Amino acid sequence: MAEYFPRVKAIKYEGPDSKNPLAFKHYDPKRKVGGKTMAEHLRFAVCYWHSFRGAGADPFGVGTRTMPWLDAADEMTAAEQTLDACFEFISKLGVGFWCFHDRDIAPEGADVDDSARNLEHIVKLAKKKQRDTGIKLLWGTANLFSHPRYRSGAATACNPHVVAHAASQVKRALDATKYLGGSGYVFWGGREGYESLLHTDMARELDHLGRFLHMALDYKKKIRFGGQFFIEPKPKEPTKHQYDSDAAACHAFLQKYDLVKDFKLNIEANHATLAGHEFMHDLMYAADNKILGSVDANRGDTLLGWDTDQFPTNIYETALAMMVILKAGGFTKGGLNFDAKLRRQSVDVEDLFYAHIGAMDAFARGLVIAHQIIKDKALDKFVNDRYKTWNSDLGRKFEKGKLTLDQLEAYARKHGEPAVPSGRQELIENVFNDYIK
Amino acid sequence: MAEYFPRVKAIKYEGPDSKNPLAFKHYDPKRKVGGKTMAEHLRFAVCYWHSFRGAGADPFGVGTRTMPWLDAADEMTAAEQTLDACFEFISKLGVGFWCFHDRDIAPEGADVDDSARNLEHIVKLAKKKQRDTGIKLLWGTANLFSHPRYRSGAATACNPHVVAHAASQVKRALDATKYLGGSGYVFWGGREGYESLLHTDMARELDHLGRFLHMALDYKKKIRFGGQFFIEPKPKEPTKHQYDSDAAACHAFLQKYDLVKDFKLNIEANHATLAGHEFMHDLMYAADNKILGSVDANRGDTLLGWDTDQFPTNIYETALAMMVILKAGGFTKGGLNFDAKLRRQSVDVEDLFYAHIGAMDAFARGLVIAHQIIKDKALDKFVNDRYKTWNSDLGRKFEKGKLTLDQLEAYARKHGEPAVPSGRQELIENVFNDYIK
Amino acid sequence: MAEYFPRVKAIKYEGPDSKNPLAFKHYDPKRKVGGKTMAEHLRFAVCYWHSFRGAGADPFGVGTRTMPWLDAADEMTAAEQTLDACFEFISKLGVGFWCFHDRDIAPEGADVDDSARNLEHIVKLAKKKQRDTGIKLLWGTANLFSHPRYRSGAATACNPHVVAHAASQVKRALDATKYLGGSGYVFWGGREGYESLLHTDMARELDHLGRFLHMALDYKKKIRFGGQFFIEPKPKEPTKHQYDSDAAACHAFLQKYDLVKDFKLNIEANHATLAGHEFMHDLMYAADNKILGSVDANRGDTLLGWDTDQFPTNIYETALAMMVILKAGGFTKGGLNFDAKLRRQSVDVEDLFYAHIGAMDAFARGLVIAHQIIKDKALDKFVNDRYKTWNSDLGRKFEKGKLTLDQLEAYARKHGEPAVPSGRQELIENVFNDYIK
Amino acid sequence: MAEYFPRVKAIKYEGPDSKNPLAFKHYDPKRKVGGKTMAEHLRFAVCYWHSFRGAGADPFGVGTRTMPWLDAADEMTAAEQTLDACFEFISKLGVGFWCFHDRDIAPEGADVDDSARNLEHIVKLAKKKQRDTGIKLLWGTANLFSHPRYRSGAATACNPHVVAHAASQVKRALDATKYLGGSGYVFWGGREGYESLLHTDMARELDHLGRFLHMALDYKKKIRFGGQFFIEPKPKEPTKHQYDSDAAACHAFLQKYDLVKDFKLNIEANHATLAGHEFMHDLMYAADNKILGSVDANRGDTLLGWDTDQFPTNIYETALAMMVILKAGGFTKGGLNFDAKLRRQSVDVEDLFYAHIGAMDAFARGLVIAHQIIKDKALDKFVNDRYKTWNSDLGRKFEKGKLTLDQLEAYARKHGEPAVPSGRQELIENVFNDYIK
Repeated sequence: MAEYFPRVKAIKYEGPDSKNPLAFKHYDPKRKVGGKTMAEHLRFAVCYWHSFRGAGADPFGVGTRTMPWLDAADEMTAAEQTLDACFEFISKLGVGFWCFHDRDIAPEGADVDDSARNLEHIVKLAKKKQRDTGIKLLWGTANLFSHPRYRSGAATACNPHVVAHAASQVKRALDATKYLGGSGYVFWGGREGYESLLHTDMARELDHLGRFLHMALDYKKKIRFGGQFFIEPKPKEPTKHQYDSDAAACHAFLQKYDLVKDFKLNIEANHATLAGHEFMHDLMYAADNKILGSVDANRGDTLLGWDTDQFPTNIYETALAMMVILKAGGFTKGGLNFDAKLRRQSVDVEDLFYAHIGAMDAFARGLVIAHQIIKDKALDKFVNDRYKTWNSDLGRKFEKGKLTLDQLEAYARKHGEPAVPSGRQELIENVFNDYIK
Repeated sequence: MAEYFPRVKAIKYEGPDSKNPLAFKHYDPKRKVGGKTMAEHLRFAVCYWHSFRGAGADPFGVGTRTMPWLDAADEMTAAEQTLDACFEFISKLGVGFWCFHDRDIAPEGADVDDSARNLEHIVKLAKKKQRDTGIKLLWGTANLFSHPRYRSGAATACNPHVVAHAASQVKRALDATKYLGGSGYVFWGGREGYESLLHTDMARELDHLGRFLHMALDYKKKIRFGGQFFIEPKPKEPTKHQYDSDAAACHAFLQKYDLVKDFKLNIEANHATLAGHEFMHDLMYAADNKILGSVDANRGDTLLGWDTDQFPTNIYETALAMMVILKAGGFTKGGLNFDAKLRRQSVDVEDLFYAHIGAMDAFARGLVIAHQIIKDKALDKFVNDRYKTWNSDLGRKFEKGKLTLDQLEAYARKHGEPAVPSGRQELIENVFNDYIK
Repeated sequence: MAEYFPRVKAIKYEGPDSKNPLAFKHYDPKRKVGGKTMAEHLRFAVCYWHSFRGAGADPFGVGTRTMPWLDAADEMTAAEQTLDACFEFISKLGVGFWCFHDRDIAPEGADVDDSARNLEHIVKLAKKKQRDTGIKLLWGTANLFSHPRYRSGAATACNPHVVAHAASQVKRALDATKYLGGSGYVFWGGREGYESLLHTDMARELDHLGRFLHMALDYKKKIRFGGQFFIEPKPKEPTKHQYDSDAAACHAFLQKYDLVKDFKLNIEANHATLAGHEFMHDLMYAADNKILGSVDANRGDTLLGWDTDQFPTNIYETALAMMVILKAGGFTKGGLNFDAKLRRQSVDVEDLFYAHIGAMDAFARGLVIAHQIIKDKALDKFVNDRYKTWNSDLGRKFEKGKLTLDQLEAYARKHGEPAVPSGRQELIENVFNDYIK
Repeated sequence: MAEYFPRVKAIKYEGPDSKNPLAFKHYDPKRKVGGKTMAEHLRFAVCYWHSFRGAGADPFGVGTRTMPWLDAADEMTAAEQTLDACFEFISKLGVGFWCFHDRDIAPEGADVDDSARNLEHIVKLAKKKQRDTGIKLLWGTANLFSHPRYRSGAATACNPHVVAHAASQVKRALDATKYLGGSGYVFWGGREGYESLLHTDMARELDHLGRFLHMALDYKKKIRFGGQFFIEPKPKEPTKHQYDSDAAACHAFLQKYDLVKDFKLNIEANHATLAGHEFMHDLMYAADNKILGSVDANRGDTLLGWDTDQFPTNIYETALAMMVILKAGGFTKGGLNFDAKLRRQSVDVEDLFYAHIGAMDAFARGLVIAHQIIKDKALDKFVNDRYKTWNSDLGRKFEKGKLTLDQLEAYARKHGEPAVPSGRQELIENVFNDYIK
């Protein structure tokens, strides 16, 4: 078996003073942070599509990366080599999980059965890889957006014949995910949206999506797949409007179609910002509604209007994200999947290591910062103080629904103008900054 | 009683060839369009705040408009004069409705009772004005955002004492709205949101908002107010994040707090675009979910990032909006409220007429275009054709929930690749353009 | 020779009442509008890349369009067939011009000479096509962004060896443009920008770009090419920051590098809006500075953050654009190039006709509207009135530079507060709407 | 004289481990960083308008802050008290500079002379304050945007009579700035732009602006004011389009009107991001073109579309800014002016201290990080390596303008495909992160 990263050995933790670009400076997998190890907290996953299939093409140019595993006489050989490369990489990186779309790991065949055979072949090899390396599957999914047949949608296509193909892919991808012991399964509806309202029956399409997800749930029960179902919000791109726009839109949809108990969200940083929200906001919205499931850990560029899918490096963002995740109890079936791609000029095989190392270190720092802030109640002090009047008799009665507008007015009449404490935002930001180190 | 617009007589319909800037060229209130008159379809309302209280101040400068009705020795006299000016204006304009916030029409007093007395005094005068002119109240609302006490929110304030004041205002504004025979009541939560997640307990604040709206519902029942309750989405401004971000976020909230049967949405064009959606999208989302209630008819500037609240003039936008509204059955309790303000350089009293006339003409044109497109099935032809395969046996079974992933896969296996018809977007856009005239 | 659009005959003008989707309703090439024909005013061009080479791929999926001319055993045969298809299309459409990049019409070869031979072969065929059909070349250009070698830039690459290849392409593309009698040559620097300032020497890169354009000018003189050089502003995409960000940034660059007399701008609608400006703004900025050259006529979606390159259909936008162009004296060497692509679901060959017909009709309407507004002085009346005080003694002296701050203060002292007339924006917008028909 | 901040003593440096919110943890004014003290490097200035005149009003609500110095029977007494409060604050904060607009420090009078008298009175008091405290004036400016007369512009007003008033204000503000020994004078054209192109003669307005700035230069020479003139870019808000849109647009303007040698730019972080650029970008553009003058040190929220003017706290942003500033040689006449305002909920007088302390610490950290990165050549190593081929014979000749397209093609022919090194962006970002501590 070829070695694809011969110049790179297993990445080790060397501490913050190391000058070795191929070492972790902060991510120490076995280091305990508040009762769990860093590895247990962060549950990093490497993604197959960007890291092993994406060569750097963009709308203005072809791929640029050196990807020797794709050099092969036929597609199945390339698929096998890619699997080798991926597991070699993850092993050397020391990450616990991977994620894939069906079409990332095995090529589309001549028909549905041929495609299924391709997938099964690779999935068997992957099972062996998992056994040999200890790497686990965080989640699987089906690519229902790249093939031209999905151009008007998959579950929301204008023709149910297209949905039949989508169903076949989801069924097979669920089989594969179960077989590989995946913790979850993600639905990202890349083409579930519209290009123009002038030719779209939005209500009917959303009903179809609701139906389709129920069918997937039925199938999940049938095969006794115990993983978590996730849907992934994104507001736009490739379509003008994606139905799963943001965490709130997904929440509305899940409630309407009676899916809210069976689905959680896979929040992606760059998707949240494209929707006009901070990453932390969509995480918190999901957490508050008990639907925070997993995370696509990347970053965007808020001055650009498309999904740049950059590796996360900003310590503020990783710390704030981890603060929400820790407060929500940490990951159970989800994790931090690096849905991120190398910049188009990062063409060397080593760049993939640098990118992941930096991202893992950034999240390790974020974890430590978040843990410390929570432990010190550094922000909670301010929050508790700010809302303390809600613990009064008036506040408690209000929260229990025991007050009327008349009674509240009587209170206002009796007590005159309220005192509203300073929001102390600048001071709180200073305190947060004290933890950035 | 002073006349505030002495140079302007009642605005008349003079037809498209008129060169009179103080005449309607398209809005002919009694013209029938498909069974209803234009006036019945459009239910225009003039808003009190921008048109009679807003002098053109912005964050970088003070007001500029000539507003003689505000010149008075005391606030209550100014309030009376403003009422005179407003009803003179609406009468001359020939519009059927008005809208107000409590603090627009009557000043805040020394305490809650004093404020209530101020409001009652003006509301009685307004009742007489309505009787004399035939002008009706489309909706009332309470201003829960301008007073410093609401700086951390009203129903979502960090202190329940603040909520008590908000309750008093809502109670009194509901009383006033009932007394004036208002068709509805709007909740726009100008400060219901956050400036920073670092000091905010979002979950608790949203629970408070849910509670508060239930109290308002209880009060509505108590006083037997038969109008419709609306909430109004907006994503940001003044806060960093407004909880009622967009139609979908409101829908999620209403479902979660069991309010979806009692509230509809008041969709504002400029709020939809600030949320990254087309005006038409949020209208359609609401219509599809049976929560389309009323409209704040203005326009924004999608190249600017704040609520410009411009008068609507774009025929494409008015036609698309009216298409959704007509298809949803038209307005029942809602209408088109001009939540729009004059540009800061439009300082003459006549400018207020020009602005409303142009907006009314733009919606009249939009109505006629939308009606004709619907009547001709000009777009429906394409839509029906595009989805026609959903009327097949496969499509019908899918929609009834009678299929499984296995059965769908079997279909895909048997029938091979699907045909996906051209989306014909360019042609449809051409057809739409044919109606713009 | 194969016929690629056998079901479509030459597109004719049939007038606004025609229901034929394959006829012009407004574009009547020989109709005179103020002394010139529509064809002379509008100088439409069909672009090779989107219309004949782009199959609809996007970052999330492969191409979808039916493009039979690309089916061939080898690339040069495909290139010949594409030329056939393009000229058949343009002839049937009745457009006067085409535009191309070198790599659109002929494939990259094994080395610079092989590439040059490929280009020369097709260019000779194109010359014959032009002669046979009367179609002319509006402008040529070189694709310096798709090949991986240009990933760090072409003229602004981090290695001068890359620049040598760019030089070869520009030289050959200039030769081809001259040979084909092109009216102009466009420089759009698809990769001239940066991904990150952390690894970029922006000052040095811009000096290189200045040098490169001077070399191109020298070569232009050497070969006696009489066409106009254009640079095309775009703020971002594919890079994070494109050096030629907007019209003003190009103007700064051209002045600094002493290129302002030799270059004009090719303004693209969607690029202007991506930069935060209205299309009309960048046109007017260029016109005011005597650098308005040509136009890439498309439209974007201001709610999306990438270049959607949609066909122009909005009558407001075409009318406003034509107003600036007419006031600037109309096109001399430039024209309206449809740098626009079919939506990904528009997969039939007829869709390309629908798209162009709609765009041409939209510009024909815009031309007529703009001409009428200018003729009637419908807007000029307001503008002249608004600035009339500048024609006073004070205004004239100021404009001649004959006043000092002291003298101006003396005027202010003597004359007290100024009168500032109403901006009348709403009324002007109404007047503009009267012309939309 | 009243003490306005009696609970706050002089702010001291206590080091990173201090828990005192009213102490510096990083800003140690006398600490040497590479040959200059922190105070000399950073040249902090407190701004009068936001910090002492702005009470927190926004378009949806009135002011909220406690500002006892504004309580007075008449405006001039309030102005005197405000000066006391400001100098007390700056003294306790230990900052070296202040900045003002004429109308911040002294109220508009009944006419130009009365206004001038008001200004002179306060300026004399300020001179004494400066003498007593050692605090210096970084720059002065005139408020030409708040008064209604400037609603159509100041130097670009539609009436030259308005310009006369602007001239008077600039003249008097220049006199005051000279008298107070200001290092510079800023032109921010708050209303120099347009609301609508339909009623605007942009070319004429820009000519007026050019003329006006020349008159200001003439006056500067006349009074022998040795400070630096700055113009401040901003793309929009309050107007739809501000003429001084971004650094590049200002550069174009300065070149066109022959002002480039006499003006430098005052770059504001939040204005750069509103223009779609990173703060660092506009700094670097200015530095590269030798027009980097001074900085308005704040931060925006790139998910919001207006100028939030928040205090800078992000260490990444302060470090990147200081990197550009240090590489450009540091400030000479400019400095870091905190053009930032408290959040509307930060209502206590202490909040103003917290905000400034946090901002100063953030810049102190940024300075140390930037200095260390430069000293270690941590990024320069990568940049130098990336461009090293430009130091070859080919590169040098190119840069000297000694090559032609033909010669470059010959090189490409001879040497075949170029090697383009990896951009290493991810690794460089990791290296940068290593310095964040």
